Amino acid sequence: MKTIGVLTSGGDSPGMNAAVRAVVRFGVRNSLRIIGIQRGYCGLIDGAFKEMHFPDVAGIMERGGTILRTSRCGEFYTKEGRAKAAEQLKAAGIDGLVVIGGEGSFTGAKFLHEEHGIPIVGIPGTIDNDISQTDMCVGVDTCLNTVVDAIQNLKDTATSHERAFIVEVMGRSSGYIALCAALATGSEAAIVPEVPIDWDKLASRLLEERKRGKINCIIVVAEGAGGAFHVAKNLQDRIGYETRVTILGHIQRGGSPTAFDRILATRMGAEAVKALLEGKSCHMMALQFGKIVPVPMEQVLKEKKTLDMTLYQLAHLLS
Amino acid sequence: MKTIGVLTSGGDSPGMNAAVRAVVRFGVRNSLRIIGIQRGYCGLIDGAFKEMHFPDVAGIMERGGTILRTSRCGEFYTKEGRAKAAEQLKAAGIDGLVVIGGEGSFTGAKFLHEEHGIPIVGIPGTIDNDISQTDMCVGVDTCLNTVVDAIQNLKDTATSHERAFIVEVMGRSSGYIALCAALATGSEAAIVPEVPIDWDKLASRLLEERKRGKINCIIVVAEGAGGAFHVAKNLQDRIGYETRVTILGHIQRGGSPTAFDRILATRMGAEAVKALLEGKSCHMMALQFGKIVPVPMEQVLKEKKTLDMTLYQLAHLLS
Amino acid sequence: MKTIGVLTSGGDSPGMNAAVRAVVRFGVRNSLRIIGIQRGYCGLIDGAFKEMHFPDVAGIMERGGTILRTSRCGEFYTKEGRAKAAEQLKAAGIDGLVVIGGEGSFTGAKFLHEEHGIPIVGIPGTIDNDISQTDMCVGVDTCLNTVVDAIQNLKDTATSHERAFIVEVMGRSSGYIALCAALATGSEAAIVPEVPIDWDKLASRLLEERKRGKINCIIVVAEGAGGAFHVAKNLQDRIGYETRVTILGHIQRGGSPTAFDRILATRMGAEAVKALLEGKSCHMMALQFGKIVPVPMEQVLKEKKTLDMTLYQLAHLLS
Amino acid sequence: MKTIGVLTSGGDSPGMNAAVRAVVRFGVRNSLRIIGIQRGYCGLIDGAFKEMHFPDVAGIMERGGTILRTSRCGEFYTKEGRAKAAEQLKAAGIDGLVVIGGEGSFTGAKFLHEEHGIPIVGIPGTIDNDISQTDMCVGVDTCLNTVVDAIQNLKDTATSHERAFIVEVMGRSSGYIALCAALATGSEAAIVPEVPIDWDKLASRLLEERKRGKINCIIVVAEGAGGAFHVAKNLQDRIGYETRVTILGHIQRGGSPTAFDRILATRMGAEAVKALLEGKSCHMMALQFGKIVPVPMEQVLKEKKTLDMTLYQLAHLLS
Repeated sequence: MKTIGVLTSGGDSPGMNAAVRAVVRFGVRNSLRIIGIQRGYCGLIDGAFKEMHFPDVAGIMERGGTILRTSRCGEFYTKEGRAKAAEQLKAAGIDGLVVIGGEGSFTGAKFLHEEHGIPIVGIPGTIDNDISQTDMCVGVDTCLNTVVDAIQNLKDTATSHERAFIVEVMGRSSGYIALCAALATGSEAAIVPEVPIDWDKLASRLLEERKRGKINCIIVVAEGAGGAFHVAKNLQDRIGYETRVTILGHIQRGGSPTAFDRILATRMGAEAVKALLEGKSCHMMALQFGKIVPVPMEQVLKEKKTLDMTLYQLAHLLS
Repeated sequence: MKTIGVLTSGGDSPGMNAAVRAVVRFGVRNSLRIIGIQRGYCGLIDGAFKEMHFPDVAGIMERGGTILRTSRCGEFYTKEGRAKAAEQLKAAGIDGLVVIGGEGSFTGAKFLHEEHGIPIVGIPGTIDNDISQTDMCVGVDTCLNTVVDAIQNLKDTATSHERAFIVEVMGRSSGYIALCAALATGSEAAIVPEVPIDWDKLASRLLEERKRGKINCIIVVAEGAGGAFHVAKNLQDRIGYETRVTILGHIQRGGSPTAFDRILATRMGAEAVKALLEGKSCHMMALQFGKIVPVPMEQVLKEKKTLDMTLYQLAHLLS
Repeated sequence: MKTIGVLTSGGDSPGMNAAVRAVVRFGVRNSLRIIGIQRGYCGLIDGAFKEMHFPDVAGIMERGGTILRTSRCGEFYTKEGRAKAAEQLKAAGIDGLVVIGGEGSFTGAKFLHEEHGIPIVGIPGTIDNDISQTDMCVGVDTCLNTVVDAIQNLKDTATSHERAFIVEVMGRSSGYIALCAALATGSEAAIVPEVPIDWDKLASRLLEERKRGKINCIIVVAEGAGGAFHVAKNLQDRIGYETRVTILGHIQRGGSPTAFDRILATRMGAEAVKALLEGKSCHMMALQFGKIVPVPMEQVLKEKKTLDMTLYQLAHLLS
Repeated sequence: MKTIGVLTSGGDSPGMNAAVRAVVRFGVRNSLRIIGIQRGYCGLIDGAFKEMHFPDVAGIMERGGTILRTSRCGEFYTKEGRAKAAEQLKAAGIDGLVVIGGEGSFTGAKFLHEEHGIPIVGIPGTIDNDISQTDMCVGVDTCLNTVVDAIQNLKDTATSHERAFIVEVMGRSSGYIALCAALATGSEAAIVPEVPIDWDKLASRLLEERKRGKINCIIVVAEGAGGAFHVAKNLQDRIGYETRVTILGHIQRGGSPTAFDRILATRMGAEAVKALLEGKSCHMMALQFGKIVPVPMEQVLKEKKTLDMTLYQLAHLLS
C-alpha cells in the first residue's frame, strides 16, 4: 500500500474535516501518498484528484462541512459508473480508499470492492446515528448539541407564551437525535420512527401535566416519524390549545464540531489508514467499548441499529 | 408616584427580563412599590398582580423570554377591556405603568392612557426592529446573532454540497434582521419587504457568480417579503440548480441575551421609571445618539421606521 | 428503602443538576421520599435537609453548578463529624444516600457506610476525569468543550501575532482534559502529569515546525504537570521566541452542560436510585461499554485511572 | 488614487478580517488595486506586500484574528523606520493607506503622513474601546460578549460554592469592558482605572449584601485598575471570606466576531476607502450617532475617551 485516496460522500456531517485531516497526516507520517478526491463518488468518476500534504489540512478540524465537498452521485450506483471509478483509481495509482459517509455510501463502496477488488475502509459520518456496529457516528454529538441549544431557545418562548412547540429534527429512519434531544432538554415527548404513538394517551398525559401547572410543552419529533405538521394535526384537537411547529432543518448539519466529534473522527481517521496498511479489505471503523475497531462492512450493512428503549422510557418518565 | 406596574406584551424578545429587573430594582432603590403584572394585558384585565422585590429578579438577566410571561390579548383592544384594566390598576393603587413590547402593545397603551389618564412609559422590546424613533429595540441584537450563527451553519453545508440555501428570518414589515444578517454573513442577497425584487436580475447575478467560481449561495429573506418558498419558486427555474429552504422560526426569539441587549434593556428600564417619576405621561424610551431619551408615544406610532439603503447596497456590493 | 437523601460534594461540575433532577424524579416515580441535602457533607452534619418534589427540579438541567450547593467539609473527615451526620440521617428517616462528587467525596462516603451501615451510591461528578472504573465522569465533556472553545480563541491571536501560547487547564492528577483538548484543537503539545517531558526534545520539535512554516503554537498543560509558568520558564530560552501564558481557571467548571453530560447524569441519577432499591450498599455508578453499571466503591478507590497512551501519541503525531 | 494599501497593527481584535474584506472588495468594486500588507508596520518596512482580489477575502469575515497578521513594530517608531516604509509604499505605487488598529498605531500613521505626505485613514480596531471620537471600536462588542459568557460560567461555581470571584478583564487605561461586563452580568462591583476605590466602603457593602442573603459575589476589575490580585489583597481581610481570582487573559481577543462587529467593520472598511477617494488625508473613521464619519486624526489623538458615569452608577445601584 503506497497511495490512499480519501473522499466524503452523502450528507455532510460535522467532524468530517477532522477525519480527512487525520487520514492525510497519519498517512504522510507513515510515508504514504494521500490523494484527496473531490465531491464524493462524482469526483471519483471524474478523476477530481489532488495529492494532499500536511499543510493542506491545517486549520480545518474546527470547521463544519467538508473541504473535500460531497455529493449524492447517481452514476456510481450503476455498474458502469463504478467501472469508470475503478479505472480512475488505477490510473492514479491509488491502492486503497477511505470513504467517509453513511450507509448509502458504504453500500456503493462495497460494490466497488467486490467488483474491482479495491480495498476500502469506511468511517461512519452521519448525523442520523443509524449505522449498526458503532456506538457513535462522526457528527452525531455536534448535531445533538445544536438541537439541544435550539430547543432551549424555544423553551424560553414556550414558557413566556404558555405554548406547546412541536420541533422536527433530523432522523429519517432513526429516532436517536429526537430521543436524546428530548432526554437532554426534559421535553414532554419524543416521537420516533421506532415506536408507534398512541395519540389519545399522549394527549391525555399532556393535558394532565398542564392541569398540574406545567406551562410549557415541547414535543420532539424525528422527520422519519411523520414530521412536525403530522404531529400537530394529531395533537391540536385533542389538547385544545395552541401549538407551534418548528422544523430545525439544515442548521443541524453545520457548525464547528464538538470536542467529542473531533476526537472520534481523528481516531477513526488514523485507524482507517492503519487498517488499510494491515490488509483490511472491506471494513468500517467502529467505536465499540471505547475502542476504535474494524468491523466487516457486510456485517455493518446487514444489521439495523436499534433504539435503546431504556432511554425512551426514561425520557418520558422524568419529563 | 408611589406604585408602578410593569408588564411584557406581544411576542417575547431576549432582554425583556433585564428590563423587568431594572424597573424593579431602580424602582425599589427610589422607594417605589413595583407590581409585576402577569401575561401582559390579559393579566392586567384579570388583576394578576404581584409585588416584586430585589430578590425576585435575581438571576433573570441572563435568561431569554420573560418571567412575567406575555400574551396577545384581544379583549384589551376593546374599550370595555381597557376599562376593566383601568379599574384593576386603580384598585391596586398603581399610579403608572411600564409596558415592554412592540407597536401593537404601544397602541393599546396609548388608548389606555387617553381613556383613563394613566401615565404610561413604553420600552421597545421586539426582535423586528420596526419601531420608529429608536435606533435599536431590546432583543434585536440577540436575534441577529442567533440568525448569523444559524446561517454560518448552513454555509458549511451549502459549501460542502455546492448548493443554494434560501433562509427565512423574522420580520413581518421590516427587513432589518434579513438585511443585517446578510451583511454580517456575506450572503448573496437580502430580500426585504421594503425593496421590490427584480427576479431576472437577481438570477443572472447569481449565475454569473457561480460561473466566477462561487460554490455556495445564501439568500436571506424576511418573512414579510413573501417567505422562503415564494423566493425558491421564483429562483429555481431561473438559476437551474438545487435550492434548499430553511425557515429559522421561533429559535430566533429565545436564547440568553447578548451583552448589548442586557445593557440596553437595563438602561431603558431605569430610565422608564425615572421618566414616570419626572411626570412623563405617554412616552417611549428610545436609543438616540447613544443616549436613552423619552419620545412622545404619538410620534413613535405615527412614523414608520425605514431601512438604511446604504447598508442594503453595501450588502449586495460586497457579497 | 422509603427515603433517599441526595447531596453534591467537592468541586462542582456541569451536569450535577441533571443528576439531582433524575434522582428526585426517578425516586418520586418509584414512590420514594427524596431529601435534598444542602452544601454537601457540611449540610449533612448540620441537618440542612429539605424534601424535594417534581417541580423543585424543573428547569435546572440546563444550568451549570449545583442547586444543592457544595462544599469541602473538613469535619466530615473526622469520626465525630461522620457520627453527627449519621444521627442526622437517622433522625430524618433517610435510608440511603446518593453522593454526587469525586474521589475525596467517595472516600468519605465509604467511611460513613463502614462506620454506620448507611447504604451509599456514588455518581462520579468531576471535571478531572480521574475516577477509575468509569469511562467518563459527569462534567468532563462540558469542561472539554469549554477548553476547546477557549483555545480556539487563543489560536486566532496566536496566528495573528505568530506567537506561542501556553494554556493551563484543570487536572491535578490527571492529564485527560489537557490531552483531549490538545487532540481536539491540533495543539502542538500536551503536557500531563502522567508523562515526563524532555524539554530539549520538545523545544527542538517546536523550532523545526516553526522553520517548516507553522506560525502559531499552542501548548496545553495540566495544572498537575507543573503549571503554565513552569512550562514557559523551561521553553522560552530554548525556543527563543515570545510565549504567552493563559490560565483558564474556574471558567472551566461552569456553563450549561452539553447534551452528553445531561444524558450521562440523567442515566446515572436514575440508575443510582435503582441500585439503592436493589440493595446495593456501597457502590458507584459507572459508564462501561455504553451501559451504566454499579461498581463496588472499594474497587473504584483502590485503582488509579490511567491515560490512554495511544491518544497521547496520536496528538503529537498529527499536530 | 489608484492603489490602496491595507494593514492591521497592534493587538488583534475580532472584526479586523471583516474590515480587511470590506476594504478589498469595496476597493475592487471601485476599480482600485488593493495591496495587503503583512504583519503591520513590520511588513510595511519589509515590503511584505501582496495584491488582494475578491476571492482572497472569501470566508474570512467569520474568523477572529487577522489574516494579514499584526505586530508591534519598534522600528516604525523611529524616523528611519518610517522613511523605509515610505519608500516601500512609493516603490509599490501605493497612493493611500488604511490602518486598522488602536491609538499607538494611529500615532505612527500620523507621523508617516506628516513626514511623507501619504494619505492615511484609520479604522479603530481594539477591544479596549479607549479611542476618542467613536462610540465603538471594532472588536469591543465581541470581547464584551466573551467576557460576559465567561463570568456567567464563574457565577455557576460562585453560587455553588458561595464564594467571591475577582475577575480581571482587558483594559489598560479604560474600564469600558469591566464596567459593561459588570452591568451585563449583575456583578457586585466594577473596578476601573477611571474611578478610585474606597476599599472599606466596598467591603462593607459586600458584607451587607451577604447578610441580606446573597450567596455569590463577582467583582470585575480592569487590568489597568491594579489587577485582580491587587483587589483580592485589599478585599480578603476586609470581607473575611474566601475569594478566588480569575484572569481571563487572551481568550478575550479571539473568537468569531459578533454581528455588530462584522457590520461595524464592514461599514468602516467601505467608508475608509471612500474617504481616501474623496481626498481625506489623515482621518479616522468613527461611529457617531449611528453613522460612519471621518474625523481628523489629530482630534482623535489629542482627546481621551471618558467613561459614562451614569452607567457606572447604574451598575452599582442595581447589583
